[in-house]
Amino acid sequence: MPIWMCSDASGRSCAIDLIAAGVDVGGTKVLAVAVGADGAVLAERRRPTPSTTAGLLHVVESTVVELHRACGRVGVVGVGLPGLVDRDGVLLSAPHLPAVRDVPVGALLAERLGRPVVVDNDSTFALVGEHLVGAARGATDAVVLTLGTGIGAGLLLGGQVARGASGFAGEVGHTTLVVDGLPCSCGRRGCWERYASGSALGHAGRMAAAAGRAPGLLALAGEPDAVAGEHVTTAARAGDLDALALVEELARWLAAGIGNLVLTLDVELVVLAGGLVAGGDVLLDPARRAFDAWAGGGAPRPPVRLAVAELGERAGAVGAGLAALRLGLTTSD
Amino acid sequence: MPIWMCSDASGRSCAIDLIAAGVDVGGTKVLAVAVGADGAVLAERRRPTPSTTAGLLHVVESTVVELHRACGRVGVVGVGLPGLVDRDGVLLSAPHLPAVRDVPVGALLAERLGRPVVVDNDSTFALVGEHLVGAARGATDAVVLTLGTGIGAGLLLGGQVARGASGFAGEVGHTTLVVDGLPCSCGRRGCWERYASGSALGHAGRMAAAAGRAPGLLALAGEPDAVAGEHVTTAARAGDLDALALVEELARWLAAGIGNLVLTLDVELVVLAGGLVAGGDVLLDPARRAFDAWAGGGAPRPPVRLAVAELGERAGAVGAGLAALRLGLTTSD
Repeated sequence: MPIWMCSDASGRSCAIDLIAAGVDVGGTKVLAVAVGADGAVLAERRRPTPSTTAGLLHVVESTVVELHRACGRVGVVGVGLPGLVDRDGVLLSAPHLPAVRDVPVGALLAERLGRPVVVDNDSTFALVGEHLVGAARGATDAVVLTLGTGIGAGLLLGGQVARGASGFAGEVGHTTLVVDGLPCSCGRRGCWERYASGSALGHAGRMAAAAGRAPGLLALAGEPDAVAGEHVTTAARAGDLDALALVEELARWLAAGIGNLVLTLDVELVVLAGGLVAGGDVLLDPARRAFDAWAGGGAPRPPVRLAVAELGERAGAVGAGLAALRLGLTTSD
Repeated sequence: MPIWMCSDASGRSCAIDLIAAGVDVGGTKVLAVAVGADGAVLAERRRPTPSTTAGLLHVVESTVVELHRACGRVGVVGVGLPGLVDRDGVLLSAPHLPAVRDVPVGALLAERLGRPVVVDNDSTFALVGEHLVGAARGATDAVVLTLGTGIGAGLLLGGQVARGASGFAGEVGHTTLVVDGLPCSCGRRGCWERYASGSALGHAGRMAAAAGRAPGLLALAGEPDAVAGEHVTTAARAGDLDALALVEELARWLAAGIGNLVLTLDVELVVLAGGLVAGGDVLLDPARRAFDAWAGGGAPRPPVRLAVAELGERAGAVGAGLAALRLGLTTSD
């Protein structure tokens, strides 16, 4: 684990027990944690994701300030964003935040907070978190999939985080899985996340509830239009057969896209993270069955491990904090 | 460029002007070249790809012996294979060579040839060739697509060749592009290479010729069943409108799959290689138009360059030879 070092008055080096704020901006919610160098979460804040740039900056700033008040010692900040983040910390676009475009989030937050701020894609930070202190410890070739409003991926290839030429690697949610399929917010059709994300599960749940095929979901949500992905996973966890069938269907779509990533990248491990897997492993067993069925349908390949994020839905926030601590360490060396 | 060094009798180092044999085993043909350290091709041999293990080993051995007789100084050998090659040089499986399974090609050829033999996936070697002396010189994030009987990819990510956990990265031809689409030799359906490879173009040409929609193709091939991908590209190059329409259709499928790779990997450059682009750039302009249309349909991204392999259909063979020279250099240092 990285430990910040300084020299005391007599010239001896000493460790500073620094804390980072890690903020994960999702399509629907902002999750901020105070995290130590060992990955331990010391405090947490949650907010709905604002739709405007000003609102977004305000929420990140205010949650970081709250975490500092709660824990003290918040010295560096990492912020994961759900879209294309370039190497200068500019959020170019985010499919689920259409009003936020070309915003230098890193520079603006560093100025407002008076602290070093590291900005990257949310899924990249989820990979960093799971690789350093979670389910991908020790792996050299792994994918962390963040299943939330959309689907993003952090890629670990040959032991290195793969960021791509411009920092935009891992936009897997918008890969085409169904030619001429369902329309997507990105402007294209048939994107993977239209079939296998939290919002896709919510959509399937609303359709089922409206058709009278999911009374358990209806009871949970109150009315068909209010059914969200979380209602489906909650009902599935309680054994609701209609909800379990929807999760099974989502798992098949998930496995098809995971298969494409395995063929392309030959990873040994796929970690499922994000809000859709927050409440436990209700998705893991169906996903494993669906992936095994996929794997059995083609040329023999080495087995691929499927796991749920050990950091749960906090993977992105914890990874953002750890990345900030590591980057601070690197630049202060 | 690597130069092999030795010590002369007086202990002074001297350069050896060593030549490698680079052999590219494709789904339908074997292309073997004698290549110098600068990538210059000094001699070439072609054979149809045998369907048996014994036949395959014999063809590789005999072409290497012929190249050595023609040029002398063939000291190391690189062999690219169209399938899953593990890190010990074992060809586990090859979709277009179903009778060749679990064959330790590297060890068997090294014994028969009495020379160091490097074995890897054909597309990985095509990437090595284009990166060292071709269209991908200077790139850090690039994909080389080999479009032949199938579609394979060599991946350059962050300046490194990405091989994956077991050496199997880049099996992109079998990624699903059309759920429940055309059946593929791999056992699944809707694989990309069923729509955008040389064999896919041949299939489309045969369908068109049989339906009386491509008299130019029929004249070239003699009968509808004899139409191959090369007939379509040859006719397209000559301006045949029916053939051009088939190439345009293939370019759209090609662009869809390239789009998925760009979203996943954020590469700056995609190089088209393999037999389908051997005769020139008849595919490049349609592919560029189709990719531009794809890029314009989603969230804004940095431009991606599309190029044709500078080494043409020899990219894999030249890369295999250069990889053998480099590996020999490394191990003899």
